[in-house]
Formats: sequence, C-alpha cells, structure tokens
Amino acid sequence: MSEARAPIVVMKFGGTSVGDVSRIQHVAEIVSHYRKDNPGIGVVVVLSAMAGETNRLVALAKSCVEIPNSRELDVLLASGEQVTVALLAMRLNELGISSKSLLAPQARINTDSRHNNAQIENIDCTTLLEIISQGGVPVVAGFQGTTESGDLTTLGRGGSDITAVALAAALRAQTCFIYTDVPGVFSADPRLCQDARLLAKVSHEEMLEMASLGAKVLHARSVYFAMRYEVPLVVLSTFAGACEAGVNGTWIVNEEELMEKAVVTGVTHRADEAQITVERMPSGIQSISKLFEHLAKRDVFIDMIAQQAVGESMVNVSITVPDEYVRVAVETIKEVMAEVGAAGVAVDRDIAKVSVVGIGMQYYTGVASRVFSVLSKENIAVQMVNTSEIKMSVLVPRKYCELAVRVLHDEFIGAPRAA
Amino acid sequence: MSEARAPIVVMKFGGTSVGDVSRIQHVAEIVSHYRKDNPGIGVVVVLSAMAGETNRLVALAKSCVEIPNSRELDVLLASGEQVTVALLAMRLNELGISSKSLLAPQARINTDSRHNNAQIENIDCTTLLEIISQGGVPVVAGFQGTTESGDLTTLGRGGSDITAVALAAALRAQTCFIYTDVPGVFSADPRLCQDARLLAKVSHEEMLEMASLGAKVLHARSVYFAMRYEVPLVVLSTFAGACEAGVNGTWIVNEEELMEKAVVTGVTHRADEAQITVERMPSGIQSISKLFEHLAKRDVFIDMIAQQAVGESMVNVSITVPDEYVRVAVETIKEVMAEVGAAGVAVDRDIAKVSVVGIGMQYYTGVASRVFSVLSKENIAVQMVNTSEIKMSVLVPRKYCELAVRVLHDEFIGAPRAA
Repeated sequence: MSEARAPIVVMKFGGTSVGDVSRIQHVAEIVSHYRKDNPGIGVVVVLSAMAGETNRLVALAKSCVEIPNSRELDVLLASGEQVTVALLAMRLNELGISSKSLLAPQARINTDSRHNNAQIENIDCTTLLEIISQGGVPVVAGFQGTTESGDLTTLGRGGSDITAVALAAALRAQTCFIYTDVPGVFSADPRLCQDARLLAKVSHEEMLEMASLGAKVLHARSVYFAMRYEVPLVVLSTFAGACEAGVNGTWIVNEEELMEKAVVTGVTHRADEAQITVERMPSGIQSISKLFEHLAKRDVFIDMIAQQAVGESMVNVSITVPDEYVRVAVETIKEVMAEVGAAGVAVDRDIAKVSVVGIGMQYYTGVASRVFSVLSKENIAVQMVNTSEIKMSVLVPRKYCELAVRVLHDEFIGAPRAA
Repeated sequence: MSEARAPIVVMKFGGTSVGDVSRIQHVAEIVSHYRKDNPGIGVVVVLSAMAGETNRLVALAKSCVEIPNSRELDVLLASGEQVTVALLAMRLNELGISSKSLLAPQARINTDSRHNNAQIENIDCTTLLEIISQGGVPVVAGFQGTTESGDLTTLGRGGSDITAVALAAALRAQTCFIYTDVPGVFSADPRLCQDARLLAKVSHEEMLEMASLGAKVLHARSVYFAMRYEVPLVVLSTFAGACEAGVNGTWIVNEEELMEKAVVTGVTHRADEAQITVERMPSGIQSISKLFEHLAKRDVFIDMIAQQAVGESMVNVSITVPDEYVRVAVETIKEVMAEVGAAGVAVDRDIAKVSVVGIGMQYYTGVASRVFSVLSKENIAVQMVNTSEIKMSVLVPRKYCELAVRVLHDEFIGAPRAA
C-alpha cells in the first residue's frame, strides 16, 4: 500500500490541544521535534478552533437571531480556526520553521454548498505542495471549506478530523496523526472500566462501529473517509510528548494488517438515547410501515427497532432515538396515533446502549450467547438487541450501564497483559 | 459632481457601533429604515470588528510570540471583522432583507502586500454590484484586503474608514456615511469646551488638518482618500436614530461647496507628543542636516521643528515627536551627539499642541497675531509654532491645553448661535 505514498504526514490537533496560547506553543514543539527527527518528511498541520470557541460563536449567533442564516453561520464559525492557525504559524516562524496559515479558500478545500454540513468534493493541493517543496509547513484551518462561488462552508461535527483525513488522502500522505486529549482508543471507557486497555491497532470497520456506538475519540465520518481512501490513521495524545509513531497511540488500519483478529476489540456505551414505545397497535405491516413513514417525513433519526406481540393481533413497537429527536418523535406519533390504530405512547429515558465490537465476530459464533449469559448472571434485563457482522448492541436500564460495560469487558477482553 | 454617481450609498459602522449583539441589531434597524425611506438606493455596509476585539487579538498574538509574523497577524486580525459581518448579515436576513457578508477576497479589495499597513490598489465591484442588482445588501468586512497571491492583509489604523471610502469611490456612490459614537465633527472637543458646536459642513482640507491635529472622529488617511476621489462623506452618530442625511452629522465636502468659508472652523488639540531639544550644537547647516539624516534612518516621525540661537554660533534644535517615537529618537540623538557636536539632549513630555484650522485662513491675515494676543492675555507661553495655509499650531505647556482651546474657540468661533 505504501509504495505510492508521498513523504508527507498530516498532523491534526483538536480544540483542547490548541485551547490556549501555551498549548499552541506546545503544538509548535511537537511539530518542531517531528521535523528534526524526520528530516525528509513534509508536514501539514490541521487545527481546530480553541476548545469552546465554536460553541461560543453559535451562542453569539443565537443571541442575535432566532435561526441563524446558514451561509452566515459558516462565515462566523470559520473565524474560530482562523485564530488558531494564525497563532501556530506565528509560533512556528518564531522557532525558525517557515510556515504559512491557509484558510479553506487558500488550501482550496472545495465542498458542495450544503452550509453547516458540507461535503468535501476535492482538494487542489498545488499551494500546499508548493509550500512543502520550499521546506515550509502549511497550517490549514480545519472544519471549513469553500464552494465554487467562493462562499465559506463548514463540514459539521468532526469536521476538522475530516479535513485532516481528506488532506492526507489528497496528498497521499504516509500517515494522518490525530492528536487529541486522550492517549488513543481504549477497549472501554477507562472512567467506567479499570481494566480498559489502550489498543495498539484497530481496524477501520471496528473503529467505525466504535465511533458510532459511543467511543468519542474519532467521529464516524472521518473514520469512514479514512477507510474509503485507505488513509493510515493514528490517534494519539498531544500531551504525551512528541509523536513517536508506533509507540504511542492507536493505529487505525485495514483489516488485513491486523495480525490477531480479536473476537471483541472494545466495549462501548452511550447514554444519549431514549426508548419510545408505541403501545398496542395492529400487528399488520401496513400500520407499522405508515408509522415509520411519518417518522421519516419528520427526519427522525431512528437507531434500534423492536416489536413485541401483545395478545393475538397487537404489538408494541419500540424504537430508540437520540435525545434531540425525542420531542419531535413523540409529537409525530401522537399526531398519527389514530391513523395507525395505536393505544398509547411511552418514553423511557433511563436506558443505555452497551455494545461489543470486534472484527473477529464475523468468524466466531457464540458471542450473543456469551453476552446474554454474562448479563443474566448480573440480573441485567436486556430491553432491545441490535447486531451486525462485527458488533452486538444491547439496550439496558441506565443504572446498569457501567456494570454491563465492566462484565462484558471482563468476559471478552479481561485484565491488561503484563507489559 | 453628482451627475455620474450611481444610486448607491455606503454605510460604515465603527467598533462601538457593533460592540455587542444588541448594537448589531440596532445597526440592522438603521439599514432597514434607510432602505424603506430610499427605495431606489442600493446600500453597501462596511463594518469594523467589535470594539476592543482588534486589541484583544494583538494581545493574544503577543502572548504567543515576541514579534508576530506580519502575514499571520493579518490572518488573525481579519477574524474580528468576520464575526461582525456574519452577525449583521444574519440579522438583516431575519428582517427580510436579503444580505450577504463579504470578506476582502470575496469583495475583491485588492491591496499591495505590505502586511499590517497595506494600501488598496483596486476594487473589483462585480460581486458587490451583482448582489445590489438583486436587491441585496452586501456587508463588507472593513480593514482587510487581499493580495494578488490570495494572502489576507490589513489596512492599518483607520482601516475600516478607508475600506468604506474606497468602496464608495469604486462604486461611485452618492454618499459614504461614517457612523460612529459621536454626532459628527465639533468645532472643538466638547469635553474641553462647553461652547463647541457640531459642524454641519467641513471641507476635505480642513478635515484632513483637523484629523491630523487631534480630532479623532476620522483618520486622516480616509479623509485624504475621500478628497482625492471626491467621495461625499458624512460623519454621524449610530445612536441618534436612523440616518437622515443633511439633518444629522457633519458633511465633508469640497471647498467650493462651502457657502461660508469660516476663518477658523475648529480648534483641535493633541497631547500625545513630546518635545525633544538637542542642546547647544553648532549652528551650521551641516550638523543639523546630519542630525535629521540619522533620525530619518531610524524612521522617527518628526512633527514640529524649531531652532533657537544660543550665543553666537550655537543653537538649540527642538523637535516634537509622537510619544511612541521618543525612546528611539533620544537613543539616536545620544549615539550621534559627538558627531553632530551637541552638548546635551532634553525631553519635555508636559506639552500639548493646540491648533486652529479654517479654510478661510488662506484669505484672511491677522490670525497669527490674534492667536498670540489671546494666549498672552492668559499668560500661556508658546514654545513652538507651526503653520500652513489653513492651520496654525502652537505648542504650549500641557497644563494650559484646555484653557488654550477654550480661549481660542471663544476668540474665533464663539458661543453657538441660537437655533
């Protein structure tokens, strides 16, 4: 794979890593060390806005107007990254490293015109390569793009990671380093599970599932991008000293590069969804399909779905939706209750989704039975189940979330091996 | 003059006028009212950053590096106007006025590449005119420009006013309204002189002198620009309600448009200079020219110059320089003291420059004698004098600054006429 790659790396630093001036100075040190240790390698830096800045700007817009114009919101938000890239480029120049900040129109990150959630269409690397070939370090504003007509756009959640991965793909970079405030990807949330271990390697597919299922270190969109364009990705900590690839952090690689395909690589959880149950509706496919039609019309994002027979011809239909969709989902259901013949609607917010993820699951059977057995030993009721080739998710009462993570981690992963 | 002008006005709002969200909302009201009252007139808005923001960003840069890279400082500073233009465009859209923010590269404000102090070379109005012709309001980020290679620049002090005047010139706009936090140009600083009156009309030449001599309402550079390109300029208050041209504010016009050419239009003062005296140097032109040569080499800005004989062949040479140049001026003089044969150097910071300005001065004699007579009546010593066709400046001890302004205002302008 690496035969056609250019001697270039992309280093992306998130909002916490550039959260204040002293941290920006620290980032400059990391870049400087990397350059000294890797004299032949060009470096492209991608930055987020300072932690909290994007939220501050959104709040500012909302204090000015009820619904911010989406084009103008992007102009406003793009100012956040403009500040950090300028400061880092100043600092690098002070350290004797020739550096230039590049905003999206300068880095020519071309997107469609879906403001606030734009998709990158292509990147013209001419300016970037020019700076690199002169020994300089381009510092690119993450999260932003530019349309054909020259309007600024932003890429939505996880946008700076996407900028980094897309640049790495366009440049055919050797590696894309995602510097963040944690040491890498863990087999479970270390705050919940003492035995959680830092994973050295994870496949793209696993990471994609883990990101969707609650591992917050990378956004699913950027993992998808990395997978699609075969970008070698490393997640590592800004605060652990200069980057030493392969020593720190978690590599996200193609499945073929994983020597050992663990049945379960990680246990994730998320507690930001609610379960909505539509009670006692006719079990025929017509009413149920009508229900989902109405929910789709209102753009309700539905995660899990289950139905349970009630008597002979009735069912309870349960769905889970992210917290922010609960209000509109319940409203919609109440409006169409008569039409679909349902008797009531109930909302349960005290739930959590716990998932086991592993590329090896597709080669081994018996994972489901082990999951149920472990949870039943602890008397943890499973309210819903969802599976794919490489993951199994269970919905449990929220109070059991931590316990479920721990016993599943114990069962499938266990305590860290001695170093 | 107005025969070839387009039905367009430029409205520029300064930092105080967009200092917070409620003020930005107020600016939107002003624009909205103007549009209702003048349906056939296109409006282009130019904004500064929020008051204090540019200083905050400079401080941020200086906390990160010792000497900020000038290219990157411009990228950083340009983010300030980006915030205000986005917010105002949002608000205008909310009020039902189609509006688009334009950053310098979008408004195509092309400058040379002197970062932090760039000069506008030309403006390509295509995009602006396109928005206007569709009934929209372009909201342009002031203070910033773009180079041929796509780098951001800033225009230095008074930059947003310059953007506004330059746009008005390029668009051949009917009027350029400079909205600020004072009602217009006064015949003296109202805080010092109770009788100071709001001037309805001032000539470009007078305004140019008054701006240089301490009237802070407009920067001299933008007045010069307005004069050169014959842009009709109005200075008025953001806080006095919607703009009613001709009623509020001060018009800055060509000399020919002034019906009544007052001998003295205004009395200005500034207390941000120091007097430096090079003591007892040979009176020959050679040493003196050498002294100024050295000062010029160090880019010391010199305002007033005077020499006073000491004995037969010696002189004291006094200059005034803005406060920020005092240190380098004194250093330079000390270094070359032996070479130019001077005996010492003294600095006097307790001085103020008081000036009378009036386009009529070129037609009347006797102004100087009236100035001296008035000041001597109050026992105010005049340390230096400087004159031009339309102004006379005197250097006085700082403690007499206020008194000098008042008695000169009394003498030449007097109490406001009854309305």
